[in-house]
Amino acid sequence: MAAGLSAAQLTERHGATLDKALGAIRTRAYWSPHPEHPKVYGDGSGIGPAEGKAAFDALLGTRFELDQPGTDDWPGGEVSPYGIELGIQYPHPDIDVLLPAMRAAMPAWREAGPKTRALACVEILARINARSHEFAHAVMHTSGQAFTMAFQAGGPHAQDRGLEAVAYAYAEQIRVPDSAEWVKPQGKRDPLQLRTTFTAVPRGVALLIGCNTFPTWNGFPGLFASLATGNPVLVKPHPRAVLPLALTVRIAREVLAEAGFDPNLVCLAAERPGEGIAKTLAVRPEIRIIDYTGSSAFGEWLETTARQAQVFTEKAGVNTVVVDSTDDYRGMLSNLAFALSLYSGQMCTTPQNLLIPRDGIATDAGHKSYDEVVADLAAAVQGLLGDDARANALLGALVNPGVRERLENAPSLGSVALASRQVTHPEFPDAVVRTPAIVTLDGAKPDAEAAFLSECFGPVSFAVAVDSTDQAIALLRRTVREKGAMTIGAYTTSPQVERAVEEVCLEESAQLSLNLTGGVYVNQTAAFADFHGTGGNPAANSTLCDGAFVANRFRTVEVRRPA
Amino acid sequence: MAAGLSAAQLTERHGATLDKALGAIRTRAYWSPHPEHPKVYGDGSGIGPAEGKAAFDALLGTRFELDQPGTDDWPGGEVSPYGIELGIQYPHPDIDVLLPAMRAAMPAWREAGPKTRALACVEILARINARSHEFAHAVMHTSGQAFTMAFQAGGPHAQDRGLEAVAYAYAEQIRVPDSAEWVKPQGKRDPLQLRTTFTAVPRGVALLIGCNTFPTWNGFPGLFASLATGNPVLVKPHPRAVLPLALTVRIAREVLAEAGFDPNLVCLAAERPGEGIAKTLAVRPEIRIIDYTGSSAFGEWLETTARQAQVFTEKAGVNTVVVDSTDDYRGMLSNLAFALSLYSGQMCTTPQNLLIPRDGIATDAGHKSYDEVVADLAAAVQGLLGDDARANALLGALVNPGVRERLENAPSLGSVALASRQVTHPEFPDAVVRTPAIVTLDGAKPDAEAAFLSECFGPVSFAVAVDSTDQAIALLRRTVREKGAMTIGAYTTSPQVERAVEEVCLEESAQLSLNLTGGVYVNQTAAFADFHGTGGNPAANSTLCDGAFVANRFRTVEVRRPA
Repeated sequence: MAAGLSAAQLTERHGATLDKALGAIRTRAYWSPHPEHPKVYGDGSGIGPAEGKAAFDALLGTRFELDQPGTDDWPGGEVSPYGIELGIQYPHPDIDVLLPAMRAAMPAWREAGPKTRALACVEILARINARSHEFAHAVMHTSGQAFTMAFQAGGPHAQDRGLEAVAYAYAEQIRVPDSAEWVKPQGKRDPLQLRTTFTAVPRGVALLIGCNTFPTWNGFPGLFASLATGNPVLVKPHPRAVLPLALTVRIAREVLAEAGFDPNLVCLAAERPGEGIAKTLAVRPEIRIIDYTGSSAFGEWLETTARQAQVFTEKAGVNTVVVDSTDDYRGMLSNLAFALSLYSGQMCTTPQNLLIPRDGIATDAGHKSYDEVVADLAAAVQGLLGDDARANALLGALVNPGVRERLENAPSLGSVALASRQVTHPEFPDAVVRTPAIVTLDGAKPDAEAAFLSECFGPVSFAVAVDSTDQAIALLRRTVREKGAMTIGAYTTSPQVERAVEEVCLEESAQLSLNLTGGVYVNQTAAFADFHGTGGNPAANSTLCDGAFVANRFRTVEVRRPA
Repeated sequence: MAAGLSAAQLTERHGATLDKALGAIRTRAYWSPHPEHPKVYGDGSGIGPAEGKAAFDALLGTRFELDQPGTDDWPGGEVSPYGIELGIQYPHPDIDVLLPAMRAAMPAWREAGPKTRALACVEILARINARSHEFAHAVMHTSGQAFTMAFQAGGPHAQDRGLEAVAYAYAEQIRVPDSAEWVKPQGKRDPLQLRTTFTAVPRGVALLIGCNTFPTWNGFPGLFASLATGNPVLVKPHPRAVLPLALTVRIAREVLAEAGFDPNLVCLAAERPGEGIAKTLAVRPEIRIIDYTGSSAFGEWLETTARQAQVFTEKAGVNTVVVDSTDDYRGMLSNLAFALSLYSGQMCTTPQNLLIPRDGIATDAGHKSYDEVVADLAAAVQGLLGDDARANALLGALVNPGVRERLENAPSLGSVALASRQVTHPEFPDAVVRTPAIVTLDGAKPDAEAAFLSECFGPVSFAVAVDSTDQAIALLRRTVREKGAMTIGAYTTSPQVERAVEEVCLEESAQLSLNLTGGVYVNQTAAFADFHGTGGNPAANSTLCDGAFVANRFRTVEVRRPA
């Protein structure tokens, strides 16, 4: 390792953090080394708000140099959902030059071993953390998230997910010792003896295909899981959300170079408009791991076609909430209103279908008819978002025209119980900010089923009238089995109903949140504590983050010698 | 749990064994709870030789009742490679009846939890162990292995592999606690609090597709990994090697029923001649896990086609030994001679290509020309197998006509350095027993390449003349990358060559044995200590046994409630 950053320095800086992360994935108690409050940054720890904004502004309209081999073009063209043009140009790869360069970086990174790799990854994350204010602007102006969410979900929470992946990757690699003495008794004869070494070896180049809505949060786990297990990572961001991952690649390259490794272990692949470079990259023989977040169609294409690679996908699902009964009607309504509103429902975890018995539900505020529940929920959303400043802070902007089209089409699907409202952003007049719509559908009608059994990504939810809670539970099972779900919620005061919903989630492999009425929402998961998806239903083939997410990113090679 | 076999009894009987197995996979030191000497059995521990033979004989010509639902036919027709007809009929499933019955068994097995499942699996293995003498005959008369090998590899060693899988499965499931309290500070406000439960849930019905040569050794890992992670297992044996797995299914069903579980958690699917039921089963939506050992063609078909399942395959490879130099020429020759002879080269781990410089090699017995090395190896094999009794004890019988055809075709591929010899079996005159052939090929000739770069499964090995050790290493790399390998061997006294071979194995993901000259052979791996294959080259997509072999057989479902 070169002069810059020694293994000893890395251990001193981050050894304790890695140990705590290893502990957290075992206990799954709350833990994070990355403060989530923007105010914490800038006063000795990382850069502050003004510096972050200035750093972001300085990037606009520039060429994003990364000094990668084989750059043959400089595409760009990101336009913020808030209306400004970023005008940043990124390197487009000649992959016949870049991929061999990345492969050439592998042996030294493999030889560094699991611990040095893990600590170098933590250093990358620490430097990203210090620049959380800069990342916040980058995430905000590519995803459309409001600033605070862009800061938290795109910054500390994404860093947590990255660190969690590093911890899992490290733990997995050290389950086998570096070496072993094997002595097999042979009765009266001498025992058979071998000395065996075990080495974690990488699979090859990993491809990260980023998404538009959560470029860092959904991107970091795969990136760091692959890198920590010895694989170079080629980062192919969504063409509308390049900047957050380009910054990530730059920081990773800096750290790797300082630690004496080839910076080509982490490279960026920007694409020309309409190029679809992911399809070309995904089937290259050098690509042995793919992480993807996005549409089911492309995710399934990857799973089926990129047979030379381990493919980890998060795709579309139909998240469902069963509303049976509650002892905190107001808490339920406000919790659901928030869950539907946050980032205009553009989270893969936002509830879409609310299954409500048509005869109504029992609550602490008396029996509520189906119509009352829907009207009260609509009122709760309206109340939450009545103030434009608060609405802007919660909603953010619609990430792309496709979401707006779906929202505008929503009234054609059923009866509108809550119409979407346009909100003006004081600072960015061109931002497309919309409150969520609630559409009522009759669960017994086939044409309604076609609507609510498809993912309608964005600020549209369906209040589905069902004959009974039993029918709701049957529909829940069918939805998860056929369409998948990242999250399931349920409200009930009945132990029998609770048990039945739980059983469906256990049998169909879905993550369940019960009776959330306070400040935790069904669409939020915390690294170290919560699994994001299960990997066991059609919405995703893996979870963030467990042993299966990391165990097949490397292999263990054994060398036996007579002792 | 019913009266028969309580969780407490299982813990008392097998808790210590499970703990030791968990320790062994961490240290990878030698360990086995299953004695490998036939003599140990019968005197208080398990059934003895006479009883085992009698039990096997009593099965011949009978209908193998398993009391499974949906049995619609009783195919059979196994003929021992030693010439006798087994005449046993096995249940053929109506899969539309059997698969739902297996699914119905899942919830209670899931609820039993990882520990009870693991201990029940250990009980199954213990009962199989007690009947090792019976299994030995069953394995011998389906695989053609000689009795001692059938006893050891088909008995205790297979049981070790099964126990190893149970240990990995159990360890993986308990990495996450049963529950956690999540308390997130909120500054001056009350903390956010959740109580979360975590449950390991099965994927669905697992399909084990057995092989002809090692029905138990290659079958137990997948069977027990799936069962221990909560999945029912449908066992589809090779039609020529049904009995060892039918016995396994029967014992598993007995234990499960005694422990109060539905015996349909483990079922048998025998097939009619030429039916190819594996193709039908593999794409059923209920089948979510597949374990397969066999041809590359069908393995790749499964990997590509059975997209609804996690597919674990061990396929064909071209195992290679680099012969550069040695300080124990005699030891090298006798070690290689044994490796080529054991079970007539019908192990997936038997060396096929011996890469020998055409200018010869340096040895402790002086320089040896290519021709001398080949002649001396041929003489070593002849010496080892000169005595018919010893030959029969080592070789066993050819498992099927395909192997004999390949052997008979071998002389057409190159020059015969050692001709195969027919050996008469004193007890079974119809047994097809053959000594291995060694064929010399010139590695520089394209037509030779076509021969040695294909798997020639059976007692045929190629002494490939190469220009230099460097060329041998380049050919080794190409072989592993393009064709895959379960095992690599190398003989060298040069640290540079050793390092170069090691580097190829690390980069191409192959298991390496260096300078084996004593009583350990390249084709043998020991459970708990050695990985069988790497899962990182074309010969197999998984290894026996690591975290990746078990981690995706279950998912973790989380249920969150406000605390």
